[in-house]
Amino acid sequence: MPGMMDTALTLGLNDETAQGLARRSGSPRFAYDSYRRFVQMYGDVVLGLRPESDTAADPFEALLERKKESRGVELDTELDADALRELVGEFKDAIRSGLGIEFPEDPWEQLWGAIGAVFNSWENPRAAVYREMYGYPASWGTAVNVQAMVFGNLGEDCATGVVFTRDPATGERRLSGEYLLNAQGEDVVAGIRTPQGLSIGDGAPGASLEEIMPDAHRELVEACNRLEQHFGDMQDIEFTIQQHKLWVLQTRSGKRTGRAMVTIAADLVGEGVIDEREALLRQEPEKLDELLHPNFDPDADRRVIATGLGASPGAAVGRVVFSAGEAEEWAARGEQVVLVRVETSPEDVAGMQVAEGVLTARGGMTSHAAVVARGMGTCCVAGCGALQVDYDAGLFAVEAPDGETVTVRTGDTISIDGATGDVFLGAVELTEGGLPEEYERLMGWADDARRLNVRTNADTPEDGARAPALRGRGSRGGPAGPTFFCRGHEPAARARALGAEGIGLCRTEHMFFGEDRILAVRRMILAADEAGRREALALILPMQRSDFEGILRAMAGYPVTIRLLDPPLHEFLPQGEAELADVASALGVTLEEAQRRVEQLHEFNPMLGHRGVRLAITFPEIYEVQTRAIMEAACNLAAEGVEVEPEIMIPLVGAESELERLRAQTAAVAEQVIEERGVRPPYLIGTMIELPRACVVADRIASHADFFSFGTNDLTQTTFGLSRDDAGRFLPAYVSEGLLPRNPFVEVDVDGVGGLVKMGVERGRSTKPALKIGICGEHGGDPASVEFFHDAGLNYVSCSPYRVPIARLAAAQAALRGDV
Amino acid sequence: MPGMMDTALTLGLNDETAQGLARRSGSPRFAYDSYRRFVQMYGDVVLGLRPESDTAADPFEALLERKKESRGVELDTELDADALRELVGEFKDAIRSGLGIEFPEDPWEQLWGAIGAVFNSWENPRAAVYREMYGYPASWGTAVNVQAMVFGNLGEDCATGVVFTRDPATGERRLSGEYLLNAQGEDVVAGIRTPQGLSIGDGAPGASLEEIMPDAHRELVEACNRLEQHFGDMQDIEFTIQQHKLWVLQTRSGKRTGRAMVTIAADLVGEGVIDEREALLRQEPEKLDELLHPNFDPDADRRVIATGLGASPGAAVGRVVFSAGEAEEWAARGEQVVLVRVETSPEDVAGMQVAEGVLTARGGMTSHAAVVARGMGTCCVAGCGALQVDYDAGLFAVEAPDGETVTVRTGDTISIDGATGDVFLGAVELTEGGLPEEYERLMGWADDARRLNVRTNADTPEDGARAPALRGRGSRGGPAGPTFFCRGHEPAARARALGAEGIGLCRTEHMFFGEDRILAVRRMILAADEAGRREALALILPMQRSDFEGILRAMAGYPVTIRLLDPPLHEFLPQGEAELADVASALGVTLEEAQRRVEQLHEFNPMLGHRGVRLAITFPEIYEVQTRAIMEAACNLAAEGVEVEPEIMIPLVGAESELERLRAQTAAVAEQVIEERGVRPPYLIGTMIELPRACVVADRIASHADFFSFGTNDLTQTTFGLSRDDAGRFLPAYVSEGLLPRNPFVEVDVDGVGGLVKMGVERGRSTKPALKIGICGEHGGDPASVEFFHDAGLNYVSCSPYRVPIARLAAAQAALRGDV
Repeated sequence: MPGMMDTALTLGLNDETAQGLARRSGSPRFAYDSYRRFVQMYGDVVLGLRPESDTAADPFEALLERKKESRGVELDTELDADALRELVGEFKDAIRSGLGIEFPEDPWEQLWGAIGAVFNSWENPRAAVYREMYGYPASWGTAVNVQAMVFGNLGEDCATGVVFTRDPATGERRLSGEYLLNAQGEDVVAGIRTPQGLSIGDGAPGASLEEIMPDAHRELVEACNRLEQHFGDMQDIEFTIQQHKLWVLQTRSGKRTGRAMVTIAADLVGEGVIDEREALLRQEPEKLDELLHPNFDPDADRRVIATGLGASPGAAVGRVVFSAGEAEEWAARGEQVVLVRVETSPEDVAGMQVAEGVLTARGGMTSHAAVVARGMGTCCVAGCGALQVDYDAGLFAVEAPDGETVTVRTGDTISIDGATGDVFLGAVELTEGGLPEEYERLMGWADDARRLNVRTNADTPEDGARAPALRGRGSRGGPAGPTFFCRGHEPAARARALGAEGIGLCRTEHMFFGEDRILAVRRMILAADEAGRREALALILPMQRSDFEGILRAMAGYPVTIRLLDPPLHEFLPQGEAELADVASALGVTLEEAQRRVEQLHEFNPMLGHRGVRLAITFPEIYEVQTRAIMEAACNLAAEGVEVEPEIMIPLVGAESELERLRAQTAAVAEQVIEERGVRPPYLIGTMIELPRACVVADRIASHADFFSFGTNDLTQTTFGLSRDDAGRFLPAYVSEGLLPRNPFVEVDVDGVGGLVKMGVERGRSTKPALKIGICGEHGGDPASVEFFHDAGLNYVSCSPYRVPIARLAAAQAALRGDV
Repeated sequence: MPGMMDTALTLGLNDETAQGLARRSGSPRFAYDSYRRFVQMYGDVVLGLRPESDTAADPFEALLERKKESRGVELDTELDADALRELVGEFKDAIRSGLGIEFPEDPWEQLWGAIGAVFNSWENPRAAVYREMYGYPASWGTAVNVQAMVFGNLGEDCATGVVFTRDPATGERRLSGEYLLNAQGEDVVAGIRTPQGLSIGDGAPGASLEEIMPDAHRELVEACNRLEQHFGDMQDIEFTIQQHKLWVLQTRSGKRTGRAMVTIAADLVGEGVIDEREALLRQEPEKLDELLHPNFDPDADRRVIATGLGASPGAAVGRVVFSAGEAEEWAARGEQVVLVRVETSPEDVAGMQVAEGVLTARGGMTSHAAVVARGMGTCCVAGCGALQVDYDAGLFAVEAPDGETVTVRTGDTISIDGATGDVFLGAVELTEGGLPEEYERLMGWADDARRLNVRTNADTPEDGARAPALRGRGSRGGPAGPTFFCRGHEPAARARALGAEGIGLCRTEHMFFGEDRILAVRRMILAADEAGRREALALILPMQRSDFEGILRAMAGYPVTIRLLDPPLHEFLPQGEAELADVASALGVTLEEAQRRVEQLHEFNPMLGHRGVRLAITFPEIYEVQTRAIMEAACNLAAEGVEVEPEIMIPLVGAESELERLRAQTAAVAEQVIEERGVRPPYLIGTMIELPRACVVADRIASHADFFSFGTNDLTQTTFGLSRDDAGRFLPAYVSEGLLPRNPFVEVDVDGVGGLVKMGVERGRSTKPALKIGICGEHGGDPASVEFFHDAGLNYVSCSPYRVPIARLAAAQAALRGDV
């Protein structure tokens, strides 16, 4: 706990006992080095002699440095016993002059001082803040352990080491650890000597403990078993052997990889140590990510040149390209590429699909790049502000942490880590991935436990269909186990494999960007009147119908929520003059006309502009044609006997009147198609609740809705008045300075946005008690948010495909916690 | 009521009675014209023979046209009795073939048919919608008056006319009206004959009724007095004289100008006809605008070339300029100018100050141009989308309603009406304005009645100080009565004269745009680090201090709420490359550096960006210096004995933690200044509540706030997810199609935004029961909104200076209505 003292303090040294230790150990240097360390630590932690400011030098370290200088040595270990004894005196002088107190010589006084310091630390301001944050009552108080000292460094019959009762990397059931003969605990971690393995066959250098001290080793194995049984979890144990006698100094549950987390919990259930509930509650859902994406080999060489936001997990190695077009060209000839952009726009999607990874200089965790990459399962580092991208020169420059300015050009190889946000120069080696068999067992228990359904956000049945170069590439550095490591293929089908029970958000606008249809979309936008728009929409209709057939077929038996067109129309027009001229000539309008239309469509705040249902109020034909495409697809499949459940979703509704009108219009088109086709698939008409006003008047909106789906991305933006695309300039400071506990675009803001969500649920169900309610923002894949949505009484969460397992686990935990 | 039938139907004509009428009147033409009109009106209104669509021709009018053609005449009045009799037959045929029914010949049948039609009209869909909108219960039902017909056209001893019991233009107590001898009511309004005045000395052409029919005139005067006494209000009366006998056909309260509204109500109180409460409740607060601004002479010649939004009332005539710089230059040499911009930005403020009026092609009722112009009392037409502005060519082109494309160049004269939004080519004549003495009496009653305080939004004590060319210009077309017709001077002092009880919103950013300080502001923004920013801020400090001294002095004895810097920093940087190069060279940085900074500051959604308190989290020194300037000003004045009440307001707070930190920082600076100066003026620290989240967590925010001020402009934008700058493309359709009852930026949205306001008030006062709460959005000057804020329990509203009287009156009405 921050601010709390959890240091192990070795007490009881003074001039007299130090002499005794020198005698008993036969090493005056050892005795006075221990004494020196003790005075330094006690002076700092108990007495409080600290640097005057964050940037000032530590007073003890300063004296140590001066001593080494005066003795002409470079390392602490080169100081002899005399020098160390002098240092003890100088440390005590510094305490006297700095604090006006004498260093206590009486071991009992030292003990009580230390005990008092530990208890006092409970009242530290930082500890108090932490308690408040986590809701720990101040009345709990803290504890102090007092124990006799044992020494692992009294000779060759002594040793010290650490041991994990199971392999923390793989979860395998075997002791894993290391030890040093004649050493203190610090020496094991200091890296000056190379520690040896514990058991025969460990493969570690040097003789194993089992060979050197078989009795102590046997005792250690027994202790490990007993402690693991007692605590019911894999233990991380520190031990010391003093003259062949084993002392266990400390035990705690050991940190582990995601793979080990899953394997150990499942094994412990199998061994009867814990039950399934306990196994589920012990999981950290976020860590499943490690199992679902490839990772860099932790031992591989690497040079970090910049760090951005870890926006979509995974690891990618590839050659740098600066445009989506280049990405497609290079990928088509078999190159692995990392697409680097200042920011991405929907026009870059095809390039993102073929890239190993995406790196952007701007944008946050919910920027276009981040959202789309997560949907694809593509590794992405976003908002890497240090990058100075120069498209014209085909390079980016960055000042690396070591101060050197690195220039990376088109074709240079970099590696990016979508979990940590690190960017590496050159190729970093990848580890193999794959799922342990325990994963399926654990997820089965989770599915039994949870009440929330988990859907996925997916826009296409098969992205591969439109990017044939991708098919069967299956790159990503190695065999990588289950097929879904080769992302980019069939997201809907893939999400099903990952456990999705339907689609919670199918964004139709992504479909508009296909090369074969964007021109028709632009023709619609540039049309002078409704007739012109209808003409262009007639070209789009069959393509959308085929999209919907694909996605409904892939999700047969499950509901598919399709959101009608949401973004402002200007997003579909090209930015540059040259591209606009191409479009104008393809559509037979003058460049001036096209430019005027672009200018007309310009918005100061597109997030708050002419989009969502507002498009349908002014251009009803757009939603009409989309509805027709959905219903024709549903009818075609239903006629084939495929089970379809389309849910047509009207976005950005703020007023009851909007949904009232759109529901009537949508239902009229749907019924007309049903009549034409003579087959009646079930369908629902509902709305996204993504504006504060929609939450406030949810009771009225509900009377026209078959379902609600909370769009918590936009709801967070409007509730906070915070653009996720612009927040990068100040939001990190908010989080790092504790003004906000966490980025509200990552973990739902329970007090503010959550308050509106609860209001929306209550008011919506006050009109329709059985109203089906879900959430389809990025928060659907965040464990803490999933718990909130469970508590708020939602029916389902929807998240990007690769977060489906995380949401399933989090939903199970929420249900299990709620059951207590 | 829309859809309800309130037509007066003359019944009882058939072939037989028409013959009788022809005989009795001696004019077969008169009889058959009456018959023709009756069949036409009955056929339309009672029987329902209507055009097939909105664009199709009226079937009766079509027959009438054909008849005139066949008779070779041009006017209806040229048709003789025969032709009219034929037409009656053709009308009846049309009814038979179109509706399949016979026209009823029996007068009783006609009567019952008409009565039934009136009662049925209560159930019209349009009437039902209207009832729902205004909360009239359907159970009220409607009424039918049946009365005998009298004729004003049976000879020279007959007449017909209309009379207002007082002058509807000035309120003067004298009959005002006109009549025609030997005529029907329709003839008076048809404009074919010129009506004559009622009384001797009316100044109307022809002999007065008093001269021609003195008895009937005396009877009319008596009837007017009796009716006015009975209804307690000025009456609009229709009368007919048949053979010297006066018949009053209809009386109702008469429509009147703002001036007459005030004068008549005050006079009626003086005459003991109504009490003060009734006088206040009868006012339409919006109409006070007419008294406070000059208007175009309604009789002047004019040619409308376009219509935009009436964004800031008043009338302006001037020569067109297309830039703020030109406006200043031209005004400096004595020209009256109208500034025409695609849209305005804070850089245009100096030009707006010297312009007679402002016309923009883009932006809504709360666009920059609209808000700033209203604050200045400058006439503004905004969002006039038909204008195609070409800055380079120095012209705008517009397709006028008559189809002609009009091109207006720099220097051409136009006139704009800030109430109606009309744009006229050339100079339209202005009427004189001025306040009647009854105004002060009425406003005194209002002040006694209201509970809400009324403050004003004002940014400067004297704008004139920075625009000397303006001083004493007092243009605006004539003497114009009270001094505040010459807007632009001393807004704070002016608002005080208009009744403001303090300042509810002083925006410090407008102060940043003075020519003498914008460079220092830009230096601050372009500074590389905190030291550079502090250096630039040190230059700004004395200027801000002097601003605050001026405004606090002008509002001595009243509270002044000063909002610390709110807009994103990029708003202070110039847009064009040339201007940016000037700034860069003035500040000694390279153009590239300046461009990089501009690019860094670019935001996708500035409304939701790095602004308000977020600036203070990343650059605390900005608010520190502003706080120091405020407190130094307050201390200086307090030392002089001036009563000051600064209220320091932190904008855009969404989280408790933001205000907690800023309150501490602000209080620390304030206390330091107080200690330095040795004088302690009272001061408060509070926040704007303008984000949905702030309403939801208002209980927590309140613990760090001395006051709340609802910023309902931004709260409306975020609650609806609606950018006021971009809403022009669809919001008009929302209002015209009834999806929203009114523009929510004009009248507060009671259900949504109002729900959040109420939540904010309740939660804020749950923490601090006596929390002072106001509102400083544009809604503070809207009567319906003021009533809501009264009901919500606010302490004050604040609005632009020229709406202060309107708010005072609306507050009184709200209090009086609440008292019932």
